[in-house]
Amino acid sequence: MRKNYLLTPGPTPLPPQVSEAMARPIIHHRTPQFQVILKEATEGLKYIFQTKNDVFIFASSGTGAMEAAVVNLCSSQDTVITVEGGKFGERWTEICQSYGVNTEVIKVEWGKAVKPEEVEIRLKANSKIKAVFTTLCETSTGVVNDIKAIGRIVKDSGAVLVVDAISGLAAIDLKTDEWNCDLVVSGSQKGFMLPPGLGFISVSQKAWGIIKEARCPRYYFDLIKAKKALDKIDTPFTPAISLIVALNESIRLIKEEGLENVFRRHRLMAEATRRAIKAMGLSLYPSEDALSDVVTAVKVPEGVDGEKLVKTMRDVYGVTIAGGQSELKGKIFRIAHMGYIDEFDIILCISCLEKVLTQMGYKFVLGAGIKAAEEIFLKG
Amino acid sequence: MRKNYLLTPGPTPLPPQVSEAMARPIIHHRTPQFQVILKEATEGLKYIFQTKNDVFIFASSGTGAMEAAVVNLCSSQDTVITVEGGKFGERWTEICQSYGVNTEVIKVEWGKAVKPEEVEIRLKANSKIKAVFTTLCETSTGVVNDIKAIGRIVKDSGAVLVVDAISGLAAIDLKTDEWNCDLVVSGSQKGFMLPPGLGFISVSQKAWGIIKEARCPRYYFDLIKAKKALDKIDTPFTPAISLIVALNESIRLIKEEGLENVFRRHRLMAEATRRAIKAMGLSLYPSEDALSDVVTAVKVPEGVDGEKLVKTMRDVYGVTIAGGQSELKGKIFRIAHMGYIDEFDIILCISCLEKVLTQMGYKFVLGAGIKAAEEIFLKG
Repeated sequence: MRKNYLLTPGPTPLPPQVSEAMARPIIHHRTPQFQVILKEATEGLKYIFQTKNDVFIFASSGTGAMEAAVVNLCSSQDTVITVEGGKFGERWTEICQSYGVNTEVIKVEWGKAVKPEEVEIRLKANSKIKAVFTTLCETSTGVVNDIKAIGRIVKDSGAVLVVDAISGLAAIDLKTDEWNCDLVVSGSQKGFMLPPGLGFISVSQKAWGIIKEARCPRYYFDLIKAKKALDKIDTPFTPAISLIVALNESIRLIKEEGLENVFRRHRLMAEATRRAIKAMGLSLYPSEDALSDVVTAVKVPEGVDGEKLVKTMRDVYGVTIAGGQSELKGKIFRIAHMGYIDEFDIILCISCLEKVLTQMGYKFVLGAGIKAAEEIFLKG
Repeated sequence: MRKNYLLTPGPTPLPPQVSEAMARPIIHHRTPQFQVILKEATEGLKYIFQTKNDVFIFASSGTGAMEAAVVNLCSSQDTVITVEGGKFGERWTEICQSYGVNTEVIKVEWGKAVKPEEVEIRLKANSKIKAVFTTLCETSTGVVNDIKAIGRIVKDSGAVLVVDAISGLAAIDLKTDEWNCDLVVSGSQKGFMLPPGLGFISVSQKAWGIIKEARCPRYYFDLIKAKKALDKIDTPFTPAISLIVALNESIRLIKEEGLENVFRRHRLMAEATRRAIKAMGLSLYPSEDALSDVVTAVKVPEGVDGEKLVKTMRDVYGVTIAGGQSELKGKIFRIAHMGYIDEFDIILCISCLEKVLTQMGYKFVLGAGIKAAEEIFLKG
């Protein structure tokens, strides 16, 4: 008998209410019965996105919703800014380039947050910039960007601000309207505590003006078609019914806890994880001023095989964390504290990490990590 | 207490094994554990598609997979043939036009199948035709097209044959390889007995040659990216994990029953439905030579409000069938016999239809439909 524990930055574990909802008998989507469900989902999303604007649901992974942002805002030969501080920032550039959209790339050193001033300089240098594509939490590095500050800058330009909040929404604060975020993209398998398969996107009034002019070809991800359908409480194509039914359970849980408490819980889980890591003599990968409360990225200590560490924890002990991606492969490991995670998930994960690191010859005081985490949880 | 019964052409009811699989704890997708699941799914899809070629899985509804076919095969200004005999044939034209692809539309009278000779004439008249976009079962009209005959024609041209088999696959016969179908598109919520949210697409060797030259912009639906990932038993983006886990249950059920038996069951359900309809003095909408075994479209008799009929069956008695779409709104109703449907589902549906039609003043011998269906089921 081996139990399985999931502490990866998406998917995250599912609450039992969500699992139960996934298993319900299916209903047809062109019925008043489903309209009640869809209305509840889109209203609930507004609460979580902290927006008064429409939030659209695609049957797609988060990347599909990112593509929706690009193709609905841009025309071929337009110029946009993309902020690249990791694998997911790079994805914005890749999508834009696939559609012939010119990108002014702000390269940020991995592990650091973008300096909002850099966005300001680039925006002022080119008045034709159509959009600024950013990332709330760069999951690949464990960094959080200052979207609020970027929003203040982009607000007064002709450009719109697009935020990939796939990793971060419903986990850390993102005030879509108050922070002037025009398009916010998210997905189901992270803070929403659902299986992957839903992409979300909110659209500001400023953005609709640009969307009407955009000429990138699109069909499945066409927001104008989605808007026409949503106005009649409908979807242009068959929606992922079971996932939307489950989404309403997740929204209910988030509302019950309250967004502020959700954020507080994530901060606590992250803080305990970071203290544990440091107490074990390990180092965090990101700069101290850019630490995300969504996922903690840790440098693999010298002499330890990072890939083997992750594999052993997963395949021998059933505790799944994430390794590094792209250029960070083998160099970091990542512990997520996102979604349906409580303090004892963090405790068991640190315990497993202590065990495997000891087995791999890394020297530290056994139990030091757990003690540091417990101290944080005791204070609450 | 009211039970709910679903006889719509997608979604179809879920077998309990599928519902149970949907509720399982989630696992991470970049793990050897998920690779086992993905491999089983893609191998199982080959069995159901009757192909030796790769079948790709998108997190999207069927329409997303249709868009994948267009954008991976075509370049702007290419010319293709689309066969339009209903709402889903029209969708091919709409997608192509969204991407600047010229369409030679073969307009087929609704309720009739396309004549394969028409495809031949159009293909011979223009040697530059890149692809022929067709529909296996036109769900909006209940018509099945002769894909085998069309395949023989397209085979010897430079064009590829694309088949929308969203409605029909795993319900009626479609021999992808033997019938020379280059791209076959399907979705999860019909013959596959799953919730909506997965799109499937098979790709022939002939098609890969064209895909390499195609210049339509694409990212999320890029087949070359999908192929690179699948060769490593992976997906380019986060897959819809729970739906793929459930897909393996569905594939297991289909394999246990055997494809030929699945087809025989659908024929039997369809035949019983048609006999019942006729015994009640009602008329089928499609031509007799174009009847699909997937969904039976019936003309609403004079003096009966077709939309009210469907609503009453659904909202008063819990039996959901489908009305007509677009120009057929209120003029037909559609009873699906696709997926997880057995003879008693057909019986209860006919019984409900008899009840509501009688209440609405339509004159026929009560029980006549049921008797006719029972006679068919008795012979088996």
